[in-house]
Amino acid sequence: MRKTIVEMLKNAGENFISGESIAGELKISRTAVWKHIQKLREHGYEIISREKCGYKLKDAPDLLLPSEIQIGLDTKIIGLNMEYYPSVDSTNRVAKALAYHGAEEGTIVVAEEQTGGKGRLDRTFYSPRGKGIWFSVILRPKILPKEAPKCTLMAAVAVAEAMNRFNLKAQIKWPNDIMFNWRKLVGILTEMTGEIGKITYLVIGVGINVNIKRDEFPEEIQGVATSLLEMSGEPLSRVVLFRAVLEEFDKLYIEVKALGFDRVIERWKKYNVTLGKQIQVISAGDGETFTGKAVDLNSDGALVVETAQGRRTVYAGDVSIR
Amino acid sequence: MRKTIVEMLKNAGENFISGESIAGELKISRTAVWKHIQKLREHGYEIISREKCGYKLKDAPDLLLPSEIQIGLDTKIIGLNMEYYPSVDSTNRVAKALAYHGAEEGTIVVAEEQTGGKGRLDRTFYSPRGKGIWFSVILRPKILPKEAPKCTLMAAVAVAEAMNRFNLKAQIKWPNDIMFNWRKLVGILTEMTGEIGKITYLVIGVGINVNIKRDEFPEEIQGVATSLLEMSGEPLSRVVLFRAVLEEFDKLYIEVKALGFDRVIERWKKYNVTLGKQIQVISAGDGETFTGKAVDLNSDGALVVETAQGRRTVYAGDVSIR
Repeated sequence: MRKTIVEMLKNAGENFISGESIAGELKISRTAVWKHIQKLREHGYEIISREKCGYKLKDAPDLLLPSEIQIGLDTKIIGLNMEYYPSVDSTNRVAKALAYHGAEEGTIVVAEEQTGGKGRLDRTFYSPRGKGIWFSVILRPKILPKEAPKCTLMAAVAVAEAMNRFNLKAQIKWPNDIMFNWRKLVGILTEMTGEIGKITYLVIGVGINVNIKRDEFPEEIQGVATSLLEMSGEPLSRVVLFRAVLEEFDKLYIEVKALGFDRVIERWKKYNVTLGKQIQVISAGDGETFTGKAVDLNSDGALVVETAQGRRTVYAGDVSIR
Repeated sequence: MRKTIVEMLKNAGENFISGESIAGELKISRTAVWKHIQKLREHGYEIISREKCGYKLKDAPDLLLPSEIQIGLDTKIIGLNMEYYPSVDSTNRVAKALAYHGAEEGTIVVAEEQTGGKGRLDRTFYSPRGKGIWFSVILRPKILPKEAPKCTLMAAVAVAEAMNRFNLKAQIKWPNDIMFNWRKLVGILTEMTGEIGKITYLVIGVGINVNIKRDEFPEEIQGVATSLLEMSGEPLSRVVLFRAVLEEFDKLYIEVKALGFDRVIERWKKYNVTLGKQIQVISAGDGETFTGKAVDLNSDGALVVETAQGRRTVYAGDVSIR
């Protein structure tokens, strides 16, 4: 409802639009229109009202509100449903709860701020208010659980393709960190629930550091984290970038459903900065540490490493470039 | 508390034991003891009380009560915590909810009856009151999600080893159905939640058809289901069998934690009736059907099938012997 009002205001441009015509379009009372306008103002929309003329949009907030994101969003699955939070503990936690209760594929949970943002293995993920894009998407792919890691690669490629639109060249470190100057720009956490032969749902959480200045990061991560602001030298519209990410994500996912992961793997390889490098690996299973040369990504999305003792396949773990 | 009372009564054998000594042992009032005795009687314990003598156990119910199962149960992990339901929709559903809220590894959910028992892919699983063992166990193994299928093999082997104690030879059809005369005796459903590199929890649901007569099965499954009663010709004590299953499960799981799945695979091969057979496979991923000869179980627990077009590896699916 409010999305439609924003859309009408935007379409009107510099013109006023009467409360009556909004009421007519939405088949609600003029008082109800006024209440929605008040709500939009609370969300940061600057809306001028003038007697006998109606309403005019002066300024939209730089917030990741569904009313901002969904207008002009060109997707078929991802983001058709969206839950928005000014602040939440973790978008993945909310998305998992929604998925458990049957939320449909493509549902997005987005927040201006996460107070308990999580990375892999319960590591904290810094997610300050209004300075990044912190969201989770629910997918229900008809693939085997062992293929889930490739959905994580897909998410990284989607963000990379979106960055491309802004002439920002993403560098993906296996499996799914996006880096700039060997510092982390984007983190992804995929969680899975299913049976042995079937994924019930995946929740893919994506955190993009957008407009965070170097010295705004907590001291302990200043050496390892960076932002698109630092990369490009200028602030980015989170709304525009978020739309781009959702659109690229949608495009890739539809392709995966129809044709499998070949293109994801191919695009991943184009963006990757791991293959060909001497790396150190800490395996996720047993915590074993070893070194070698990353030589390939196999068809499961696992990393093939050439070590002094022969080839090893890493399904999950931490990789650092030596 | 009630478990201790039952234990004291059992230890007393034919003798009476005074309310006072129970009260003293448990540090509760005699009135509280009397209330527990009443509760036990409600659960089916026949307890005689005689003035000036106290209480004597005449008969214990054939129910899978923690007070029955845990006394004399020789396990270190599995079954130390137990939730019991006379009737529940699905023990897996309850176990998943408990696991989500942090229940510890080894926690068991058991029911006399499931009203909405589930098999793989939302198939129904017939679970009539008091005639089988319907339980779920929560595990938190430190293994990769891709190794989860081997936990399912482990569960099948545990039941097979327990049957062995009663001189009943189990036949395992890949991956984890236990058969007798090509009819299903035992079904297993494993559900998983985790990250890409980490299992948060597994819930393994096991349904054992114990004392179900052939004509008691619903007509539509009479041709494909059977029971231990039909196999051995005589009714089995569910309590004794359940303890055996939990003990074998515990033993195998402790070994897996220390040494990996080698012994599980080896024992599985001993019990299996799939390898060497001409089979038809319906793949879980894409629903593709094909035929071939089952030639091996690989190190991931997947089935290797020799087809006219070469070897194929099946990670999940339905297998029927031709």
